[in-house]
Amino acid sequence: MKLRTPRGVKDFLPADAEWKFQLEQQIRAIFGWWGYQEVITPTFEFHDVLAQGGPAAERHTYRFFDNNGELLVLRSDLTMPIARMVATRFKHELKPLRFSYIANVFRYDDVQVGFQREFYQAGVELIGTSSAAADAEVAALSISVFNHLGVRDFSLDIGHADFIHGVLEECTNSTVRQQIWDLLLRRDLVGLRNLVTASDLTSATKELLLDLPHCRGKEALLEEVYQRTVNPHARQALINLREIFQYIQAYGYGDQVTIDLSIVKSLGYYTGMVLEGYVPSLGFTICSGGRYDHLSCQFGNDLPAVGFALGLERLMLVLEQQGLRPERKPQGLLVLPVSWEHALAYAMEQRKAGIRVEVDTEGRSEAEAVEYARKKNYNAVVIIEKQAIRSIALV
Amino acid sequence: MKLRTPRGVKDFLPADAEWKFQLEQQIRAIFGWWGYQEVITPTFEFHDVLAQGGPAAERHTYRFFDNNGELLVLRSDLTMPIARMVATRFKHELKPLRFSYIANVFRYDDVQVGFQREFYQAGVELIGTSSAAADAEVAALSISVFNHLGVRDFSLDIGHADFIHGVLEECTNSTVRQQIWDLLLRRDLVGLRNLVTASDLTSATKELLLDLPHCRGKEALLEEVYQRTVNPHARQALINLREIFQYIQAYGYGDQVTIDLSIVKSLGYYTGMVLEGYVPSLGFTICSGGRYDHLSCQFGNDLPAVGFALGLERLMLVLEQQGLRPERKPQGLLVLPVSWEHALAYAMEQRKAGIRVEVDTEGRSEAEAVEYARKKNYNAVVIIEKQAIRSIALV
Repeated sequence: MKLRTPRGVKDFLPADAEWKFQLEQQIRAIFGWWGYQEVITPTFEFHDVLAQGGPAAERHTYRFFDNNGELLVLRSDLTMPIARMVATRFKHELKPLRFSYIANVFRYDDVQVGFQREFYQAGVELIGTSSAAADAEVAALSISVFNHLGVRDFSLDIGHADFIHGVLEECTNSTVRQQIWDLLLRRDLVGLRNLVTASDLTSATKELLLDLPHCRGKEALLEEVYQRTVNPHARQALINLREIFQYIQAYGYGDQVTIDLSIVKSLGYYTGMVLEGYVPSLGFTICSGGRYDHLSCQFGNDLPAVGFALGLERLMLVLEQQGLRPERKPQGLLVLPVSWEHALAYAMEQRKAGIRVEVDTEGRSEAEAVEYARKKNYNAVVIIEKQAIRSIALV
Repeated sequence: MKLRTPRGVKDFLPADAEWKFQLEQQIRAIFGWWGYQEVITPTFEFHDVLAQGGPAAERHTYRFFDNNGELLVLRSDLTMPIARMVATRFKHELKPLRFSYIANVFRYDDVQVGFQREFYQAGVELIGTSSAAADAEVAALSISVFNHLGVRDFSLDIGHADFIHGVLEECTNSTVRQQIWDLLLRRDLVGLRNLVTASDLTSATKELLLDLPHCRGKEALLEEVYQRTVNPHARQALINLREIFQYIQAYGYGDQVTIDLSIVKSLGYYTGMVLEGYVPSLGFTICSGGRYDHLSCQFGNDLPAVGFALGLERLMLVLEQQGLRPERKPQGLLVLPVSWEHALAYAMEQRKAGIRVEVDTEGRSEAEAVEYARKKNYNAVVIIEKQAIRSIALV
């Protein structure tokens, strides 16, 4: 019998699991300090409900039928389930709503490149507000989490989905428009050059599109690019982004944020600010998110919203790379019960005081117990006889 | 568009989710004090691997195919995945191993009677020891969890799989044997009487089988029943159970434990002590477990083991019934940013001190802010101007 686990899923052994729970508790606390309330949604839902993320999200889902023949899907993010939850359970509640989650999600991604098919995300959704202050809050919160955890060199790129949509409006051929979008998404700069050059766009728009991958900077960039486009939606997006950036500066996070006007997201539901978080040592984003103002329309509930999610395994990888994984020190006692009655009473007392206590169930000798306790990372062996307690320290 | 969630799964809204995490942290701490280390396994695994629980477990699983055409299954408990994990990752580690988990599991149960199809379990597995002290430890730990959480009137019934197996060995007809087992499982006492009376068992065994549902008591019961069977396996089981019960008494939990020789489990893998935990107000078990010494054989790893799991939603139900659900008090501040720069600096300082702070992103007036903060359960509204901070207490 082959004892494999499916590709892209994994066990967390005790040391990793313990660390993961510590990180989750820290993140949970930070989300709470910012006024977010954690929710839990089902692991699977009806395919019809969760399929609103568009074909890009849809391609990678795990699907199966229940006994009634209804198609179910394992959640591939928490944005969709929370939008569904808000539409059904919070329709008449006072807005905005601030929800957070720490949960596993499932995507049938290519595991060749190290992606997991089951992985953990921590994130927030700020729902029912379209203010720039809300976008900035979500961006600032993402930075705050990484800074609080001690991650070095975390930086956040912010862009705007409507800016690119606006610039592309200048292109009347919808096929070419989609092709440019795809090339930007894949960051295929050669393909982009060929297609844009051959298109019927104005030379100013051509130049802007070809310059896009270099459109990175601070506030000054926004004013510069504003002069290079006449499209009103693109211009509105730049004004919105400037306002968001000013709030981010008020948080004191201006230095960690770069405006990148070339960000294009595979998920089609973004409408405003988009964000991507990076750490130099990691070859892919460590957090991601943005504004999705019309997603909940499909749920009969037109609420603007903005959110982000970070990858917990990626965070652990970065912390490890940066030497920030906490050391596991020897901890607790192994009790050797010569007198069971006294040993169990002693163990229960120690446990009540919050001390980790294993009671030997195997009738070990003192020497065996010391060897076992060393290997199991206990601090001491405590031998408990009727009249005496003896302790052998191991460190 | 219908916004339903599938039957038997549910959202945990903030108040429930928060309480659930608090309980999980408490249970996690207790498991740790007893020397157990938490692990996390994948949500789905290969059907071949997890199908070792026998047809009773198998009937209720969610199954689906991955892209390679391999059959996957959502885990229906953690005992099987942890046995698989031990066989692959801990084969040569020092035994015994003490693992714990808090995880969601999936069973295609009949939701008519209020059972969830996705629900949460917290439990332990003590692996690599067949000592009676180990059985007692697991039983005592289950009691300790409920007592520590303040649950009133928790009681544990313990029985022995080998006792019933042994008594049934006296029945030479294997079909009848299986039928008696099924009747005991369903607690169909009328059916049991008819079948046993018509069987070719000795009159002593007949009487014992018909008395089984009433075989509840303390140590004296074991000695009485010992005299009523000649089967060596059944007798051995009674001796084992007496030893376990004596250890449980040494823990000081004798009063909360009843020996019940009629316990029959639907899962076929139990070999020794079996346990079921009850609270009077709940119509079904709140925790369940036992010894399963040969389960890991199928994984090429013959390790005796014992464990238990409790149902987290059932625990929450009982705590609620007993008035032990903690009250949610107003908490935190709503900051009204007249000066954004000062307001954000103030908010970040308060958050650093662990205080929950929402910064109003909607440009509310003072009166609107007070009303909003009241409804959102904040303690106070803090209005931050360039030169002044004013606080309006809400309680």
